[in-house]
Amino acid sequence: MKSDIVIIGGGPAGIITALTAKSVYPDKSVCVIKEIGDGVIPCAIPYMMKTINDPKLNIMANKPLEDAGIDIMVGKVESFDINNHRVIFSGGDFLSYEKAVLATGTDAVIPPIQGVNLPGVYTIEKSLAFLTALRGKVKRARNVVIIGGGFIGAEFADELSRFTSINVHLIEAMPKLLYNAFDNEFCVDAAQILTLQGVNIHTNCRVSSIDGDSSVSSVTLENGEKIPANLVLVSNGARPSIELAQKAGLRIAENNSIWVDEYMRTSVDDIFAVGDCALKRDFFTRKAVPVWLASTATAEARNAGTNIYGIRVIHQIRGTVAAFSTKIGNLSLASAGMTCRSCQNEGFREVSATAKAPDRHPGIIPGASMMTVKLIFADRSGIILGGQVSGGSSVGEMINVIALAIQKKVTVREIDMMQVATHPLLTSAPTVHPLVNAAHLALAKLRLTARA
Amino acid sequence: MKSDIVIIGGGPAGIITALTAKSVYPDKSVCVIKEIGDGVIPCAIPYMMKTINDPKLNIMANKPLEDAGIDIMVGKVESFDINNHRVIFSGGDFLSYEKAVLATGTDAVIPPIQGVNLPGVYTIEKSLAFLTALRGKVKRARNVVIIGGGFIGAEFADELSRFTSINVHLIEAMPKLLYNAFDNEFCVDAAQILTLQGVNIHTNCRVSSIDGDSSVSSVTLENGEKIPANLVLVSNGARPSIELAQKAGLRIAENNSIWVDEYMRTSVDDIFAVGDCALKRDFFTRKAVPVWLASTATAEARNAGTNIYGIRVIHQIRGTVAAFSTKIGNLSLASAGMTCRSCQNEGFREVSATAKAPDRHPGIIPGASMMTVKLIFADRSGIILGGQVSGGSSVGEMINVIALAIQKKVTVREIDMMQVATHPLLTSAPTVHPLVNAAHLALAKLRLTARA
Repeated sequence: MKSDIVIIGGGPAGIITALTAKSVYPDKSVCVIKEIGDGVIPCAIPYMMKTINDPKLNIMANKPLEDAGIDIMVGKVESFDINNHRVIFSGGDFLSYEKAVLATGTDAVIPPIQGVNLPGVYTIEKSLAFLTALRGKVKRARNVVIIGGGFIGAEFADELSRFTSINVHLIEAMPKLLYNAFDNEFCVDAAQILTLQGVNIHTNCRVSSIDGDSSVSSVTLENGEKIPANLVLVSNGARPSIELAQKAGLRIAENNSIWVDEYMRTSVDDIFAVGDCALKRDFFTRKAVPVWLASTATAEARNAGTNIYGIRVIHQIRGTVAAFSTKIGNLSLASAGMTCRSCQNEGFREVSATAKAPDRHPGIIPGASMMTVKLIFADRSGIILGGQVSGGSSVGEMINVIALAIQKKVTVREIDMMQVATHPLLTSAPTVHPLVNAAHLALAKLRLTARA
Repeated sequence: MKSDIVIIGGGPAGIITALTAKSVYPDKSVCVIKEIGDGVIPCAIPYMMKTINDPKLNIMANKPLEDAGIDIMVGKVESFDINNHRVIFSGGDFLSYEKAVLATGTDAVIPPIQGVNLPGVYTIEKSLAFLTALRGKVKRARNVVIIGGGFIGAEFADELSRFTSINVHLIEAMPKLLYNAFDNEFCVDAAQILTLQGVNIHTNCRVSSIDGDSSVSSVTLENGEKIPANLVLVSNGARPSIELAQKAGLRIAENNSIWVDEYMRTSVDDIFAVGDCALKRDFFTRKAVPVWLASTATAEARNAGTNIYGIRVIHQIRGTVAAFSTKIGNLSLASAGMTCRSCQNEGFREVSATAKAPDRHPGIIPGASMMTVKLIFADRSGIILGGQVSGGSSVGEMINVIALAIQKKVTVREIDMMQVATHPLLTSAPTVHPLVNAAHLALAKLRLTARA
């Protein structure tokens, strides 16, 4: 068996690599090998518990691949035969390739906590069967403990708090929820909403053991507190899935992801890696960073798919801008680039400013909510380093204005003079536009900094 | 009487010039002279008929000016005494200035139609008293004819169609509604919604007379059709308000706006002009264009306010990008830069592509609607020329991603590789993101064009 392009992994990175490669090289045969036959749209997994009426509605459809004439196989690749350009399946079957792409994603990190293997303790698997079963268990649960208050943990807590029958506890080792993506004031707003929705939040807090006999019955924290639990979700982070790459002798980067160059090429000819399994470099520091986002993965996939038979499009993006968005209760929150906290940790001298305005004008227009925009700039060059936004749903696209600004190295003066489209029923007023105003306020601070 | 900086006009351009100048030059006194004492937020005027419960809620507040320590006067400036740096009021009083800024806006164009001065025929004035009275008249009207199907006409038609008691007719001379801002397919979608809401649309159609004895009773079209009308709204465009500038001998540009240089300086020392009264140049052609947007006006105001005592920030924006958004029924529509039609009219060789995707993922998430993104690129350089978007409310910020892309001369390849933030409850899926996909589809067409 042979396929010109073989892609290992059926998540967003694999799918978009396949679709891009097929559109750029229509004469090549492309095959996607999926380990999970019933994979789901990963970002929407928390919402499969309640918001989405039927878990099946969140299936990752094969149709776009089929429509493009891409083959799909379900199976597990065990190893590479690099000399013969083959991938080998568990049964010993093989598939020859001209180009192979690893899009193996991440595996959940299972913390070394006593009792983590008890029945009733789950890490999130990305299959429909698992999540349908989990939905059933959640519905019947009375006390749920979520370990890890990053995006997945916070989103699960939000979703589960909509069941009035469930007590939800959320445990986070860091000082705040969503600590890696947001500065404190945004973290605090998110936590406040979850608290109002009845979630019990424990920050600066670690789990010392998960307890129970035949199944989980409680979780004990390091501070001694014992929380009743008949269901525990572990959302404690993930690590790149690199076993296959390691076995094949591919170079592994310092943070245990698959090393890739600017064009997603691994250290072995004709093997590429894209998405969460591949090395991510930070846009500003170029350090290896653990930013695993479908949006970053698909950008890499378009890069790899386009350039797979020779580099035709010079890649101009220096690394991941870490553009996140989420919604907690009715508050949408988004972040791109550096936070003030990461600036301080990485030694960037930043100036930031925050502006608020209703996201409709006048602010009494039905459906209006307050939008907050924080922008962060380098204190001498004035180039944008990052931004954070909270408010109504349009936050989801407002952050993409900021994400593009970062990718284009826009300066504070350019945002201060930016022409924005506005409309009473859709946006803030042009006179108080929080994106422009945040830049304007930052400029005033930059002048003071320059004098100092 | 003396004020260091005197600003004539209390609309968005005047207010933002005042606030910017005061923030950059806090030691200077600033005075805003408003002709209308009870001015309203102009963009929201159509929504004062019904959506906004009480017209007073749309007042243009003086508080931001007062808080900044800016003086406000209500009065009409009759002329300039340029030699003595004075503005003269109708009563003969004067106010001395170091710097004066004209922010006089536009006047409605009253078409030379027979009967246009009949009672019951109105152009839109920007005062609370007028609009409160108009709201009362609208409520009691049975047959309303709106002359002009640009943004204001279409938005009034949408708003008035929410009164079940009113028959609304909308008359437009061009082949489509919203013809200057959108390509046909978007115009058609907007018209279809208005039609479903019961608006009678007449395109390619002119009014030959407005009829009635003591007040308007009908409108006769050039095709002979007679439409009953007891209220007629004329939204037939506007022209820059330049009388004061003309009297003062300021240079007037070819399209009858006040000529300004890159820094909003008129041909007379120490007099600036900003906003709708000032010359607008198109971003791509540099031609004088009649684009009157509060968002463009406020960008000019920030430019003028910052540079009023000497040029300190080199202006980097070549002209107006014409970034519009609106909402018709439940469909939000937005446009920035050139349309395919304007490309053809102006001799630009463009390639465009359109992508659609639900604005949530999966598409069955509650509140999801289909988002359509059309992007237009120069066929050789691949630089973005324009974009149009329709869909749910997040269209209002999605267009600002495109507006920034235009201002930064982003290429089709950069958008194809752009990293976007996505979230199931807020945006399209990263795998089918319509902004990225439209660029990807355009790239395929550009390859074919290159071969041709």
